[in-house]
Amino acid sequence: MFNDFKLIEGRPVYIQLKEYLKKHITNGNLPANHKLPSTRELSALLSLSRNTVLTAYAELEQEELIYALKGKGHFVSMVDIARGSSPENIYWNEKMNAAAISAEEMDLMKHGVKWEKGMISFNSIAPDEELFDMTNVKRSFMARMSIEGEILLNYGYAKGYRPLMEYLKNYMEVKGVDLTDKDILITNGFTEGLDIFLSSIHRKYSSVLCENPTHYSAIKLFRLHGFHITGIEMQEDGVNLQRLEKELGQNKFDFAYFIPSYHNPTGIVTSSEKRMEIIRLMAAHHIPIVEDGFNEELRYSGSHVAPLAAFEGLGNSVVYIGSFSKILFPGLRVGWILADKELIYYLESIKRARTIHTSTLDQALLYQYLHDGYFEKYLKKAKMVYKKKYEAAIQACRQYLPYKKLSGDGGLHLFIEFEDSINTRSLLTKCLEKGIVFSPGDVFYTNGQGGNTLRLGFSRLTEKQIKTGIKQIGEILKKSEGLNK
Amino acid sequence: MFNDFKLIEGRPVYIQLKEYLKKHITNGNLPANHKLPSTRELSALLSLSRNTVLTAYAELEQEELIYALKGKGHFVSMVDIARGSSPENIYWNEKMNAAAISAEEMDLMKHGVKWEKGMISFNSIAPDEELFDMTNVKRSFMARMSIEGEILLNYGYAKGYRPLMEYLKNYMEVKGVDLTDKDILITNGFTEGLDIFLSSIHRKYSSVLCENPTHYSAIKLFRLHGFHITGIEMQEDGVNLQRLEKELGQNKFDFAYFIPSYHNPTGIVTSSEKRMEIIRLMAAHHIPIVEDGFNEELRYSGSHVAPLAAFEGLGNSVVYIGSFSKILFPGLRVGWILADKELIYYLESIKRARTIHTSTLDQALLYQYLHDGYFEKYLKKAKMVYKKKYEAAIQACRQYLPYKKLSGDGGLHLFIEFEDSINTRSLLTKCLEKGIVFSPGDVFYTNGQGGNTLRLGFSRLTEKQIKTGIKQIGEILKKSEGLNK
Repeated sequence: MFNDFKLIEGRPVYIQLKEYLKKHITNGNLPANHKLPSTRELSALLSLSRNTVLTAYAELEQEELIYALKGKGHFVSMVDIARGSSPENIYWNEKMNAAAISAEEMDLMKHGVKWEKGMISFNSIAPDEELFDMTNVKRSFMARMSIEGEILLNYGYAKGYRPLMEYLKNYMEVKGVDLTDKDILITNGFTEGLDIFLSSIHRKYSSVLCENPTHYSAIKLFRLHGFHITGIEMQEDGVNLQRLEKELGQNKFDFAYFIPSYHNPTGIVTSSEKRMEIIRLMAAHHIPIVEDGFNEELRYSGSHVAPLAAFEGLGNSVVYIGSFSKILFPGLRVGWILADKELIYYLESIKRARTIHTSTLDQALLYQYLHDGYFEKYLKKAKMVYKKKYEAAIQACRQYLPYKKLSGDGGLHLFIEFEDSINTRSLLTKCLEKGIVFSPGDVFYTNGQGGNTLRLGFSRLTEKQIKTGIKQIGEILKKSEGLNK
Repeated sequence: MFNDFKLIEGRPVYIQLKEYLKKHITNGNLPANHKLPSTRELSALLSLSRNTVLTAYAELEQEELIYALKGKGHFVSMVDIARGSSPENIYWNEKMNAAAISAEEMDLMKHGVKWEKGMISFNSIAPDEELFDMTNVKRSFMARMSIEGEILLNYGYAKGYRPLMEYLKNYMEVKGVDLTDKDILITNGFTEGLDIFLSSIHRKYSSVLCENPTHYSAIKLFRLHGFHITGIEMQEDGVNLQRLEKELGQNKFDFAYFIPSYHNPTGIVTSSEKRMEIIRLMAAHHIPIVEDGFNEELRYSGSHVAPLAAFEGLGNSVVYIGSFSKILFPGLRVGWILADKELIYYLESIKRARTIHTSTLDQALLYQYLHDGYFEKYLKKAKMVYKKKYEAAIQACRQYLPYKKLSGDGGLHLFIEFEDSINTRSLLTKCLEKGIVFSPGDVFYTNGQGGNTLRLGFSRLTEKQIKTGIKQIGEILKKSEGLNK
């Protein structure tokens, strides 16, 4: 006893002593009526002030965990402990349903390559945290806290924090979206937005249409919700319209999912012409569209391209799901759904039933940061840095990789297709030996293809790492003619 | 044009002008090749500095939304707009599935009494925000930000923020829980914790056992997930064990749900003896237990009572879901599941698939606040204030209400049962006229009973409001003999 008592820094010492004693009382190490050391003894033994020990004892007494006998000292109270009774052992893996088992199987974080120090990892497409302007983040927090801190810390509303909702509505209007009969719901990032939509939509055909390849998290959620996925191949300027039209003529779908800007994983920006045509085709077949507003801000050059939600004008078939996660701070889990107000009315109730609301603090901090114009400033800086990384990556690929196709019109990643004879999973195994990792492209395909593709995320690497890493991949490819399928 | 341009405070003016112009370009109000006012004209017209207008124009030019002709001025670019095409109109309410429709129907925030200024509302059991110690919240934020701000703002882990996970594991151990083969998952509050569990558990019998009445959000989620609910009546010291045993002998259940401390809505604390007996009975029938750790900290007097998770010792059948929401800051959406590590392994993947992770900022702020000992200090103050409100509420009930049963051993609410002849929904209608509202108790019942009950949440009212409100309810009851069922 007491020889395993170790102080941690920054936490009041009397609390640490109280917790230590309470733990040993509640787990039975200190039995009922056991005499505790006197406060003098214990303070000497643990080199604590006597006051600390007195306070800890007083609080334990108040909780009736110990009692004092006048002139005799402190003793452990009778505490109910049920140890020793034959413990129930549940085989939890046998209790899991199909969704839980699938979620585990499709969990790339569990089954992918683990990052190790010193690796050059092209896996991540998260922002480079060295770009974060902490000063303005802190400033935004303090500003909002001063205005209405108490309100931020109490319960908020399922639909979202009102100032942020208003900000985002305006933000969408500026992008060209008509807000007539539209409404907004704040979510825990894009992912929750999509999940809430999938949880709410009636599955008449249990079938979804999307680009192929596409965002892995979306594929995962479609599968978890029991949707059959039909992927349409991507061309340089977006989805293949002929194939799309043919598919629409032959099959029925509950909805379609598109990532028109900086498509994940191919990095392709769908052209305005194709956007209009997608809207026209979907309307002709009365199919709702879920638009993933992924990375829309990360244009390094070129003119404005409006989201699908803008192209549909007064229509109400586009469900726009947005997030700043890939540009701003993904640690703040904030996304939004802008859609028909009748749809939002239902989604709001699902949101409330599941998580009550999104963190108000996250929403308020984000709001203040956006409102005060820090986002624009940050974006300028971020674009400059990412553009350089993007150009370094493109150049290195051209120089070192024998690719068949390279895509990526901006954003934080490139997508590469090799000859069919090259298998990127075998390539990854070889690269891993040299400390280089990337995302093999097959996971993004809806139909098991893409064994000859890979995604290179460059956002969190230095230009030098980008060059070194890609060069190494090229060298490994050169050496190993045996990377056949 | 321009006469509806209104400046809002605190946002850089050039951004506001840029957004204003961009909005009118993307929505077609400013057609292609339309000549914009000169920077001099516009700065005069809107009383802005010329520099502001220059900056706005420069940024619009960079986005290729406008173009400049030397010596002629600025013109609107050709921007693709699809307005005017026949817009698609989806009937979204026909596209909603059973879960979305039920969620809306069971959404009390939508169908309950709306709060209005001046009302005395006994609806809320959220903390009183006037108690929040903003100074220490700000201090915790700044401290954590300085230590690892950049990391907090980037992606975190689905399981949670490690320092908080470690803190909470110790916190549970101090309560007497054996951590052998246990693990923890951080969630967006209690509600998400329960929802993730319900989404993952195999429904062999589609049947759940719980106390009757019980937490409304739990009832709602059970129903949304398609569980049949069997409620066991509450006695003064917890669930009726005879009925529980009888039910267990007759029917099969996938799991049981208990709120052993400050039960919602009755406020009852289940005795240690009953806790042990619950553990024994459930183990005998091999039924997992979901323990709702609701308000465990809000004891105003009396000795330590360990959670069910502690009473099962080395067993692994209790899934403890905790949260500080009712005591600390509900705006921070942080809860946790402490359970068998094999179960947590699956729940983690469901969590990742749905929301990636809980706000790291919320977790980090909460961690720092807890670690630095502010929670203990806050709890002392909060308990003192709430205890007074509790006593005021109890006294007023005794003095003014003709109840049959009054329960509430602490916490932030009381539960009242009247004679069968009194219908609390009719009572609410009368009270509403006087600006008094409360939660009619029937919503908490699993079987349509409780029409003669109500819950009084007093946390956010002053002692005077508590007394005035309860007195008025009593007077209305006295006057209206006609409040029969």
